[in-house]
Amino acid sequence: MKGVIAGRAPGVPVVDVTHGIPAQDVLAGALVLRHAVPFFPRGTVHVGIVDPGVGSERRALCLETDEGRLVGPDNGLLSLAAPADRVRRAVVLAEERFFLSPRSRTFHGRDVFAPVAAALATGVDPAELGPPCDDPARLVVPPPDVDGTVVHARVLYVDRFGNLTTNLVDGPLLRRARAIRLGGVRIGGVSPFYAAAPPGAPVAVVNSWGHLEIAVREGSAHERFGAGVGTTIAVEID
Amino acid sequence: MKGVIAGRAPGVPVVDVTHGIPAQDVLAGALVLRHAVPFFPRGTVHVGIVDPGVGSERRALCLETDEGRLVGPDNGLLSLAAPADRVRRAVVLAEERFFLSPRSRTFHGRDVFAPVAAALATGVDPAELGPPCDDPARLVVPPPDVDGTVVHARVLYVDRFGNLTTNLVDGPLLRRARAIRLGGVRIGGVSPFYAAAPPGAPVAVVNSWGHLEIAVREGSAHERFGAGVGTTIAVEID
Amino acid sequence: MKGVIAGRAPGVPVVDVTHGIPAQDVLAGALVLRHAVPFFPRGTVHVGIVDPGVGSERRALCLETDEGRLVGPDNGLLSLAAPADRVRRAVVLAEERFFLSPRSRTFHGRDVFAPVAAALATGVDPAELGPPCDDPARLVVPPPDVDGTVVHARVLYVDRFGNLTTNLVDGPLLRRARAIRLGGVRIGGVSPFYAAAPPGAPVAVVNSWGHLEIAVREGSAHERFGAGVGTTIAVEID
Repeated sequence: MKGVIAGRAPGVPVVDVTHGIPAQDVLAGALVLRHAVPFFPRGTVHVGIVDPGVGSERRALCLETDEGRLVGPDNGLLSLAAPADRVRRAVVLAEERFFLSPRSRTFHGRDVFAPVAAALATGVDPAELGPPCDDPARLVVPPPDVDGTVVHARVLYVDRFGNLTTNLVDGPLLRRARAIRLGGVRIGGVSPFYAAAPPGAPVAVVNSWGHLEIAVREGSAHERFGAGVGTTIAVEID
Repeated sequence: MKGVIAGRAPGVPVVDVTHGIPAQDVLAGALVLRHAVPFFPRGTVHVGIVDPGVGSERRALCLETDEGRLVGPDNGLLSLAAPADRVRRAVVLAEERFFLSPRSRTFHGRDVFAPVAAALATGVDPAELGPPCDDPARLVVPPPDVDGTVVHARVLYVDRFGNLTTNLVDGPLLRRARAIRLGGVRIGGVSPFYAAAPPGAPVAVVNSWGHLEIAVREGSAHERFGAGVGTTIAVEID
Repeated sequence: MKGVIAGRAPGVPVVDVTHGIPAQDVLAGALVLRHAVPFFPRGTVHVGIVDPGVGSERRALCLETDEGRLVGPDNGLLSLAAPADRVRRAVVLAEERFFLSPRSRTFHGRDVFAPVAAALATGVDPAELGPPCDDPARLVVPPPDVDGTVVHARVLYVDRFGNLTTNLVDGPLLRRARAIRLGGVRIGGVSPFYAAAPPGAPVAVVNSWGHLEIAVREGSAHERFGAGVGTTIAVEID
């Protein structure tokens, strides 16, 4: 992909955001993209590829927002960074003259997304890439269930430290949290930072995405609790 | 390595192709390099380092082809990207004035290959680097054995998704494939893309290198079949 | 982090030294930084982040040496690359106008260190970042114990090949090494390079940091010996 971009958009800087998305985990990719895009200069071209449907009939998209242009498969990967009410323009990548030829059916990162990103970075207008798209695929991240004084949050993402990011975001509900229960352990309330817990102890924080996160200080909550994507965490509120 | 290049070739863009080659797997590195080089602009300097013989008497090389210049150890790593009939010039890296001094005997990436790459990128001619080399080490990738109506392919490379790349390349033989057998499982014929199989099922595709590849949709063929480099896969042809 | 730098220091090249430091291993980060910094151009801004105390009262620092400027948490991470006798200037990062706002208490890489690095790279003087710091945290790497004719070295770092870097550095003591014992195995003396051992055999070398390192040729000393940080290795000297 970088070779294709180097050839077609010479001098354009390319940045790796991550190569650490778990295989085929579209939601993890979508979350990482959502929280990376706002920190890049406006107009940046963002390429996201978690693409188990590569080569099939799944469409490829370019979504334009005030923050930048996003390129990737139409499987929801781009949808958290480019929610419906902020998309100014959406097009299906259909103009094959922007693709490599021949193109494989297993690596559109190289054959479709990289050359399209290079085209955008060198001034091609998204409208040239294909017809408008009215119905980009969207991921829905369900909010936690609230059951009286217990909020049932769910793990959305496990990072490389084994920290567990949940679907409970900062706000009135989270500020009422008094105790968190996971795997039979009572963690207490939300701490301001990881080091508020003693080494080896679990700790709950609001992470850099603004989500409730469960960590183990100088350890791995993933390993300690055998917790992963989908694990439920009980948050007691007052 | 990047620091050395930044100092000696300021402004020259440096791209990471991969840091994911399995330790000491020269063939894996050679295959990745072979399939990366053609996608970079002509004249790019490619540095490849999978170098278990570092510091010993193994030679270091620069190979020049129409596509670019390749720098690395003389252990076959460069040989698939620069096959004998396409090498325009081969030299042994012998001129120590292009190396760091002192140089270690355990990290020639930093002490030899990075500074030589920087020299090439800033206009040094390969002929200045040392004497011609008539006999670069070459890897031979044996073709599959054909036994009547069964082709015995072999796994050459396992990627980070657990997909198994074999030594059966696209062509007349592969187009006659009717069924593939691996670990007691019959996979059926070659599918056009991964998502042709149901989630969790094995699938055979022609991958982006043009090789037969066995994958598990939204899973790992490496884990499912306990298969790795050298595993044999039976391809039934008509 | 790269988005923040791209926005605040456009055109300034950014290089990844490593993303492979074991979680929370400040010493590993400090060692890697110490041995990377000298190979970069003078004046480079180096950002190091292994930061289990992020968001707490731990300070953030900029240390200036002849080699460059280092930015990171005040937990010793920078101290091996910027030892006390080579620090020309040390400041506490206190001027919040250089930080992102709001800033999280879990990701100062993005909110503090990246924007400060961008400021330095675009000409801000370290003195503008905050007050002088007289007492940066320092890591002490204890030398090996010498007991008659046996030196008890200790593993400081395990790299991704499973090679074991010890605290015995090149010098008069190491040159007297005649045999090395680890896990009941006698390795013999120090070899000039990895390939001096037969495939699969353990080998001791002076590595590219100038430290005694135990490796297994085409294997992993970490796995073979079950050895990790803190493991003791006996070096017999004459």
